[in-house]
Amino acid sequence: MNIREQARKLKEDSIRMAILSADIRNHALAAAAAALEKNKAVIMDANQQDLKAAEADQVAAPILKRLKFDESKLQGVIEGIHQLIELPDPLFQLQLSRELDEGLTLYRETCPIGVIGVIFESRPDALVQIATLCLKSGNCAILKGGSEAMQTNRVLFETIYHAAVEAGLPEGCMAQAEMRSQIDELLECDDSVDLLIPRGSNAFVRYIMDHTKIPVMGHADGICHVYVDQDFDLHKAIPIIVDSKTQYVAVCNATETLLVHRKAAKKLLPELAKAFAQKHVEIRGTKEVQDIIQCASADEQDFKTEYLDYIISVKLVDSMEEAAEHINHYGSHHTDSIITENKETAQRFMQLVDSAGVYCNCSTRFSDGFKYGFGAEVGVSTGKLHARGPVGLEGLVTYKYKLFGEGHIVADYAEGRKQFHFRDL
Amino acid sequence: MNIREQARKLKEDSIRMAILSADIRNHALAAAAAALEKNKAVIMDANQQDLKAAEADQVAAPILKRLKFDESKLQGVIEGIHQLIELPDPLFQLQLSRELDEGLTLYRETCPIGVIGVIFESRPDALVQIATLCLKSGNCAILKGGSEAMQTNRVLFETIYHAAVEAGLPEGCMAQAEMRSQIDELLECDDSVDLLIPRGSNAFVRYIMDHTKIPVMGHADGICHVYVDQDFDLHKAIPIIVDSKTQYVAVCNATETLLVHRKAAKKLLPELAKAFAQKHVEIRGTKEVQDIIQCASADEQDFKTEYLDYIISVKLVDSMEEAAEHINHYGSHHTDSIITENKETAQRFMQLVDSAGVYCNCSTRFSDGFKYGFGAEVGVSTGKLHARGPVGLEGLVTYKYKLFGEGHIVADYAEGRKQFHFRDL
Repeated sequence: MNIREQARKLKEDSIRMAILSADIRNHALAAAAAALEKNKAVIMDANQQDLKAAEADQVAAPILKRLKFDESKLQGVIEGIHQLIELPDPLFQLQLSRELDEGLTLYRETCPIGVIGVIFESRPDALVQIATLCLKSGNCAILKGGSEAMQTNRVLFETIYHAAVEAGLPEGCMAQAEMRSQIDELLECDDSVDLLIPRGSNAFVRYIMDHTKIPVMGHADGICHVYVDQDFDLHKAIPIIVDSKTQYVAVCNATETLLVHRKAAKKLLPELAKAFAQKHVEIRGTKEVQDIIQCASADEQDFKTEYLDYIISVKLVDSMEEAAEHINHYGSHHTDSIITENKETAQRFMQLVDSAGVYCNCSTRFSDGFKYGFGAEVGVSTGKLHARGPVGLEGLVTYKYKLFGEGHIVADYAEGRKQFHFRDL
Repeated sequence: MNIREQARKLKEDSIRMAILSADIRNHALAAAAAALEKNKAVIMDANQQDLKAAEADQVAAPILKRLKFDESKLQGVIEGIHQLIELPDPLFQLQLSRELDEGLTLYRETCPIGVIGVIFESRPDALVQIATLCLKSGNCAILKGGSEAMQTNRVLFETIYHAAVEAGLPEGCMAQAEMRSQIDELLECDDSVDLLIPRGSNAFVRYIMDHTKIPVMGHADGICHVYVDQDFDLHKAIPIIVDSKTQYVAVCNATETLLVHRKAAKKLLPELAKAFAQKHVEIRGTKEVQDIIQCASADEQDFKTEYLDYIISVKLVDSMEEAAEHINHYGSHHTDSIITENKETAQRFMQLVDSAGVYCNCSTRFSDGFKYGFGAEVGVSTGKLHARGPVGLEGLVTYKYKLFGEGHIVADYAEGRKQFHFRDL
């Protein structure tokens, strides 16, 4: 079957998925966890093949590291599935119960979104997390992982898929796309795919957003900021800035720009320069920054750049408000942090900054589904509709309104014979 | 200012709107209500001009009726504003409070979406409802009403706008577009408009969806169904079907197709034909339907058609499941109703049908923000993301995550020196 046919099959079966009880879905997850454990040797073999091929292709070290799927990563994802099973069912949750009139009762109940296409990087653990999040939330999923992980992904997918179907999930609960060319096919399936979640480079995500009518949830770039206010604690500031920049440079929630209140600059910057020197971070500062510390120069373009590298741009500002304006203008509405001892300034910053995550006195690297206690995430959204920030189970459901009557018609209300009384139950 | 400049001004001021207290927003609404009352004569004059121009242009009677804005409609919208003031504030609501670790606390708080563009039909009361819903929810709004209502809309807009700004709302809280050509300009403002809500014809809404990168909330067509199950009560069925079809034919929640269980057909159809004859409804039935009652013939195309007229297509099915399949295939996921005395069949139908509204023993015409007790609606969404069904205040807000730390960094957790404990507060 090509992707279009598979998507149509998933769409058909999405209704069957939507009516399954939490027990059956959790049972399928448990079966998937057991099957992964059982197929350990085959999975490791497949991963060795991917690793060898990647090494032969001289793939960069960070990608190799993410591609590697060893015993400890396998135990990690199995443990993750057991945690997911324990999480409350996101489906069939009543969000509203209201009597509109005698005998006419409205309910709003959560239900799956339907068919979700997820395109993700060459990380085998991502396949397991995304697949199991979709199954737990009653969604059918089309998964396309990075090609470097093809052998590992194929075994992981087959293992989870067969366990799930044996446990009673419909045949069209999941499908896998393996070829890059299938992504363009997937983008055209707007009649059967309800949501796309692309993860990857800025250019890739923008390509997806610009070439499909399917709603897209995700983020293109992650230009995150730390702003150091005039009332700051140096002992908090330095570790937070260093962590935000260097704890993992290749990710969307790493900080790219540091904004510093003019009154804080002389105390902060020399200490920061020392700390960054130890971590081999290149500082690119404006003229004013260069007057205080020795560093490369930053221009307008730097503030628009997601380095994903050991580079940070630095600029001085006159006030918290100016910092917030800079962030709203240059940022990507992902995650931005203020370092201040002044609670009022913090609260105001957090209201003024129009981002999915607004932080006070902590590292931007905390914006992540695991760290928020969501169990896992399918991605991070910088859009404002539906889910914003790290997207876990809750972002994978929608709702429907159910209205129960006893022969109720609208003419009675339009013509004044009856009146609504709206009473929440 | 052209639309692009206006949109940019609104975007800038959207941050100022977002931090206003509920008191100030409600005060602005009260001022708007008072100003509408005060400007009554000017408003009525403007509406007379619109009505005269529309009559001269031989505009159809239903449009004239919606265009007319008399004393009773004015009192209706003023009353609506007072009800809106009484509704709880949708902003600054905590949706989650969680301690991730000692001193590291996560909150999720509602906030406005930002700048919303609404394009709506020639109904002056719609302008007032949409403008006030946006102000109550802290959003900046660009309003484009139907051109037939231009004079009335201009006076209504100016009245509300000046009252709001005098009451302390920012200058960029609202803008009005009057020319059709400005719609295309608006579609290109994806850097400053966060959401578009188009209301209008199928073709118009599709045009909007296909020509912008801005997220669109709404519905193109409204092909709603009533399904009559084998266990049905004739005394409920006939009024519900007649109401669903005829209470207001020109709207999205009017029923276009009736599905009837084969075992119900002989009892239902002759009675229904009589009732529809009185209302001058044309029945278009399949061959099997024509074997029972005299009617026009329906083909495949009929089941894909939103008549918005006194016409209904009728088809027999073997089971509730077949009805649900037909609805999921041909429908527009808007609102669909089952008529049955069997509660289990009803529950299953309501799970199987993938629509924003799934009803039992009541008219499809109930799907509406007012009738759901939302106060008013900005539109009805048949999409599955963000808001589904009638969209009131709740659909006009999003949320942000606020994380408060005391110098917390991710390296401590990544390297095992600290552990999250996730405790909901």
